[in-house]
Amino acid sequence: MAAVLRGSRNLLGRSLKHVDFTLVSSRSMASKTQVGFIGLGNMGKPMAKNLLKHGYPVIATDVFPESCKELQELGAQIVDNPAEVADQADRIVTMLPSSPNVIEVYTGPNGILKKVKKGSLLIDSSTIDPAVSKEMAVATEKMGAVFMDAPVSGGVGAASSGKLTFMVGGVEEEFTAAQELLTCMGANVVYCGAVGTGQAAKICNNMLLAIGMIGTSETMNLGIRLGLDPKLLAKILNMSSGRCWSSDTYNPVPGVMEGVPSGNGYQGGFGTQLMAKVLTVLCTTSGDGRELMSVAPLQDLGLAQTTATNTKTPVPLGSLAHQIYRMMCARGYAGKDFSSVFQFLREDEEEGQ
Amino acid sequence: MAAVLRGSRNLLGRSLKHVDFTLVSSRSMASKTQVGFIGLGNMGKPMAKNLLKHGYPVIATDVFPESCKELQELGAQIVDNPAEVADQADRIVTMLPSSPNVIEVYTGPNGILKKVKKGSLLIDSSTIDPAVSKEMAVATEKMGAVFMDAPVSGGVGAASSGKLTFMVGGVEEEFTAAQELLTCMGANVVYCGAVGTGQAAKICNNMLLAIGMIGTSETMNLGIRLGLDPKLLAKILNMSSGRCWSSDTYNPVPGVMEGVPSGNGYQGGFGTQLMAKVLTVLCTTSGDGRELMSVAPLQDLGLAQTTATNTKTPVPLGSLAHQIYRMMCARGYAGKDFSSVFQFLREDEEEGQ
Amino acid sequence: MAAVLRGSRNLLGRSLKHVDFTLVSSRSMASKTQVGFIGLGNMGKPMAKNLLKHGYPVIATDVFPESCKELQELGAQIVDNPAEVADQADRIVTMLPSSPNVIEVYTGPNGILKKVKKGSLLIDSSTIDPAVSKEMAVATEKMGAVFMDAPVSGGVGAASSGKLTFMVGGVEEEFTAAQELLTCMGANVVYCGAVGTGQAAKICNNMLLAIGMIGTSETMNLGIRLGLDPKLLAKILNMSSGRCWSSDTYNPVPGVMEGVPSGNGYQGGFGTQLMAKVLTVLCTTSGDGRELMSVAPLQDLGLAQTTATNTKTPVPLGSLAHQIYRMMCARGYAGKDFSSVFQFLREDEEEGQ
Amino acid sequence: MAAVLRGSRNLLGRSLKHVDFTLVSSRSMASKTQVGFIGLGNMGKPMAKNLLKHGYPVIATDVFPESCKELQELGAQIVDNPAEVADQADRIVTMLPSSPNVIEVYTGPNGILKKVKKGSLLIDSSTIDPAVSKEMAVATEKMGAVFMDAPVSGGVGAASSGKLTFMVGGVEEEFTAAQELLTCMGANVVYCGAVGTGQAAKICNNMLLAIGMIGTSETMNLGIRLGLDPKLLAKILNMSSGRCWSSDTYNPVPGVMEGVPSGNGYQGGFGTQLMAKVLTVLCTTSGDGRELMSVAPLQDLGLAQTTATNTKTPVPLGSLAHQIYRMMCARGYAGKDFSSVFQFLREDEEEGQ
Repeated sequence: MAAVLRGSRNLLGRSLKHVDFTLVSSRSMASKTQVGFIGLGNMGKPMAKNLLKHGYPVIATDVFPESCKELQELGAQIVDNPAEVADQADRIVTMLPSSPNVIEVYTGPNGILKKVKKGSLLIDSSTIDPAVSKEMAVATEKMGAVFMDAPVSGGVGAASSGKLTFMVGGVEEEFTAAQELLTCMGANVVYCGAVGTGQAAKICNNMLLAIGMIGTSETMNLGIRLGLDPKLLAKILNMSSGRCWSSDTYNPVPGVMEGVPSGNGYQGGFGTQLMAKVLTVLCTTSGDGRELMSVAPLQDLGLAQTTATNTKTPVPLGSLAHQIYRMMCARGYAGKDFSSVFQFLREDEEEGQ
Repeated sequence: MAAVLRGSRNLLGRSLKHVDFTLVSSRSMASKTQVGFIGLGNMGKPMAKNLLKHGYPVIATDVFPESCKELQELGAQIVDNPAEVADQADRIVTMLPSSPNVIEVYTGPNGILKKVKKGSLLIDSSTIDPAVSKEMAVATEKMGAVFMDAPVSGGVGAASSGKLTFMVGGVEEEFTAAQELLTCMGANVVYCGAVGTGQAAKICNNMLLAIGMIGTSETMNLGIRLGLDPKLLAKILNMSSGRCWSSDTYNPVPGVMEGVPSGNGYQGGFGTQLMAKVLTVLCTTSGDGRELMSVAPLQDLGLAQTTATNTKTPVPLGSLAHQIYRMMCARGYAGKDFSSVFQFLREDEEEGQ
Repeated sequence: MAAVLRGSRNLLGRSLKHVDFTLVSSRSMASKTQVGFIGLGNMGKPMAKNLLKHGYPVIATDVFPESCKELQELGAQIVDNPAEVADQADRIVTMLPSSPNVIEVYTGPNGILKKVKKGSLLIDSSTIDPAVSKEMAVATEKMGAVFMDAPVSGGVGAASSGKLTFMVGGVEEEFTAAQELLTCMGANVVYCGAVGTGQAAKICNNMLLAIGMIGTSETMNLGIRLGLDPKLLAKILNMSSGRCWSSDTYNPVPGVMEGVPSGNGYQGGFGTQLMAKVLTVLCTTSGDGRELMSVAPLQDLGLAQTTATNTKTPVPLGSLAHQIYRMMCARGYAGKDFSSVFQFLREDEEEGQ
Repeated sequence: MAAVLRGSRNLLGRSLKHVDFTLVSSRSMASKTQVGFIGLGNMGKPMAKNLLKHGYPVIATDVFPESCKELQELGAQIVDNPAEVADQADRIVTMLPSSPNVIEVYTGPNGILKKVKKGSLLIDSSTIDPAVSKEMAVATEKMGAVFMDAPVSGGVGAASSGKLTFMVGGVEEEFTAAQELLTCMGANVVYCGAVGTGQAAKICNNMLLAIGMIGTSETMNLGIRLGLDPKLLAKILNMSSGRCWSSDTYNPVPGVMEGVPSGNGYQGGFGTQLMAKVLTVLCTTSGDGRELMSVAPLQDLGLAQTTATNTKTPVPLGSLAHQIYRMMCARGYAGKDFSSVFQFLREDEEEGQ
């Protein structure tokens, strides 16, 4: 499958008029010059390492100084805050836990935008609300720079081995420049459309993933109760219309597959709590709850026009999946892999008495 | 993929003691002798035709005489009722709409069991409650014959082209004999385990299919609202963990794929009403609602010991999928393909005002 | 509120033609003659005691001989089986755990119908599928007797104090006769319509009760998290449109009310498992899963015409409530009061880590 | 029931230190001085009229000048914007459609806070996110004034007749002052606790209301299908544990009650779309989606410390109720009363074919 897909052009906003493309072009040619990296957590650190490995000088920062040590030893320059990164690098990747962190890192007192150079390329790989991505894009554009959202699919393992999938939203003309950096860290770099569509694609995939995983768990559980051998049932599903990633690649039933969390007490993998969090973003996005952004205080940043693309799409199964992951968090499954929903739904011999 | 899979042997019941295997063996050797076929509806007729095409003399019956005409013209012998079929053929395939029809055709006044020969092989391809399959198996065994459940996956098209998948439950020793006939009508013949497990596998697959289809529809709908191109979104899902049969083979969004009902106004395919019905079987099976079978009147048929294998498995998404298909039936979608849930969830421009 | 309500007459079946009303009348006049009672469990025993207390001679039986002791000491006559009860009493009350028990007690080898006298009045207070009630009514009518379904609302406490509510289905002409006995055991005796409508009313009430209880628990839990005092929140709900029985009479939050299971570690009350079971009856009833009854073997009992009143009503919240109670059973809540769903949804401090 | 209830004191924040209670006291004594009113929509206009009726001089404004006419004719003074209202009145009531309007009216360029006098009492009766209420409270406090949230229960009718219920959150010492005004417009004024708890109580009530209404509709629908007379079923529920406001006060089945929207083609009442909107607030509140408020741009308003009281409470039925109301909006029910869910779930004779 082609690693790079291109979406429809008609989603591109009219918002590019302030950007100086001469500057932009000169920057994106300048390969192997310094790349900024902000957020050196479980995901960010191996991603930054892969940039170093590909020969890019890295200048990085993180709120926790100890997170920076390893990268410093590998040759990265560590600075105090995002503004200083922006002062030196004209290509910056951010990998942060949630929307407020992204807003802080971009628009805070020591944020990127305080020192960003005209023509810089800012790539945000955090998983956040698409509406926030849009707002950051507008704020960035006002400074004469370019913002792209590029959330990832794949966990810590894929981050380490450089096998992440990046879903990229932003001005199509800048996609090649983003791709140059992202291919150092990922196996697939997919262009999704205007700013925010990278996040949208990520959220959509996660919603369907959650539904498929719970559905597979219910189905395997029911089949076992009806007398089917779990391995055989998995095989039948996988050659039939019930087939899905959760049944054929990440089966939640212990013993059906090797090398997946279900075979290892649901340790590692993608935590239930994290899945619940991503589904919360979805819930907010699918509703009209983001109405808040079109208000006065943010108008000073010029964000008023970008009001959230709120939808009112019914997502009954997505919403119930969200609630089930919340119930699991409340019942002690927060730290287990999200495939442990199989265990949650299964009658516990002891407890079930 | 190997067309024939074998399940665990330990599911086999103890119930074979009365069967005369000498007779059984002599029958299953007797290839190309007459095969009985009961139920010549949309599915049954093309299945029976495929038996004729493979050189088997067919003796058939149906409650609607007009259904028999075409088959008669192709050389099949038509008789009045199931008992007469059983009087002449020692291998019989049944393809009926629901549990009561199966019970009637087997145990009714003119039912198969009134005239079944010792050692006959009775294969039921109807989609029914696994508990009913078990009861028919016990009643059949009492007459010295063998019962197997072999529901199919695949629609009228697959029935015509002989590409059905059969999920077979019953005594493993008889599987080869069943396979001989079923391979004339299907591309995959999968052995699932003891009697009832064929039905169980079918129900499980359908539940996960329903969940996957509604989940895919919600996801595509949400993605489109968030500004993603539907074809691009489908491609991204299909290369990621959201992938499922409904996204990559039977996409519910008009224009994403060719040759599927979404491209044709949701005509043809697998009806919403039928999906709702299959999910009702599931709902009954997943509960303890089949308690009724262990009662006095049925004891005369020796069915008391076979009480339903009822489970109490929680199936929250399966159950909500069921309710959504019911709501659709109530709102005019009964006759459309089950992928029309995409349309149901989407805001109707006119109505949504 | 009037204790006795009358429903619409137009629901009455055409099935009364065989009943000899002369006999019926003579029986129902014969007050204070022997009354039969079958099923002396937690509910049945105090009900039978109340009949004794009102001066009725009681002749009783139960599958567990030890259940009969206490009643025998109070003066009841104990016999071996339902047939012997029917041989002596022409008014019989049954109080049994589930449909199969009712069918066995009525139509089994030692069942009531083997010896029932013409004109007898058979009142079944068990909670079962309305379709089974209808079948029992037809079978009873064939013997020249009358069947009424009269399930109860209220638990062991109400049974002991004679404060049950009876929901009665059956021939309206017989309601007065049934009422004579039922008012000894209950505070409200409500006529609901044709046979089966007593069960239907009971099921409907339980479904709404389950929804209200889970809804109240979610709401109280959310309010507490938002900083509201639980007692105050309950008061506000109870003076507003959120008011329901679960919020104002049986509040699930410990400390809000006295004398309810939430104040006592969710001991006693109405068990989660029992609620799950009643909702399963509902699920079966709301679907078309009861198709089985219209089949051959039962035709010998003349039951074919009474095919289940199956509906295909969407019950999305009812169905999800059912699944939640099943999940609770799987997670160790089976024996707790059904209001413990508050605890199930609440984050457990220890577990939630 | 006492019209005024008091909540727990321990919820009061530490945030009062800047307020000059001397000024506050002097203001709240000054009865019958001018009262400001902002937002003269369907609800606001009759509320303001009731203030006039009780002898309070009213100074008002609305973005739509035509909304002000009627009030002007009744003697109210109309000014251009919220700042001008604040310039003249030290007690102001706001009644606005949603969070962004409230933020604009308070913190916008012509907002209340631009001219608010020290010691003023600002009462917001809009239904908004509790987190926004808290933020407005902090911003108000910074100006030396007092903010209380006081959302209402009851529709246009109750607003006209002065029978609203107010749920009030804010500093307890100020409750008496708020009560003086609110009792002119409502029959019940309930003190709920710290700022935001009025909104919390309102949201909780609406969630349970939505669940109760859908549950009642499912139940009535099922009962009717099972042969029960709807009026009789309502009576039975209302004397049993299924009882709720939707069954006994606002029954959704046409013909069961008079004077409710179900008797009038579901016209009037509380619109489905509005219910969907309120449930969206709930969904956002019950999640962690409001994380956005703790960010840089808002720090200028001193709002950083008040980050949303986000909870992660599972609300499975509340969430499904939300989705059902969304589906209804997508299927043409947006403008009908929320009790029309009965109609939505019921098989349409024509459509259901």
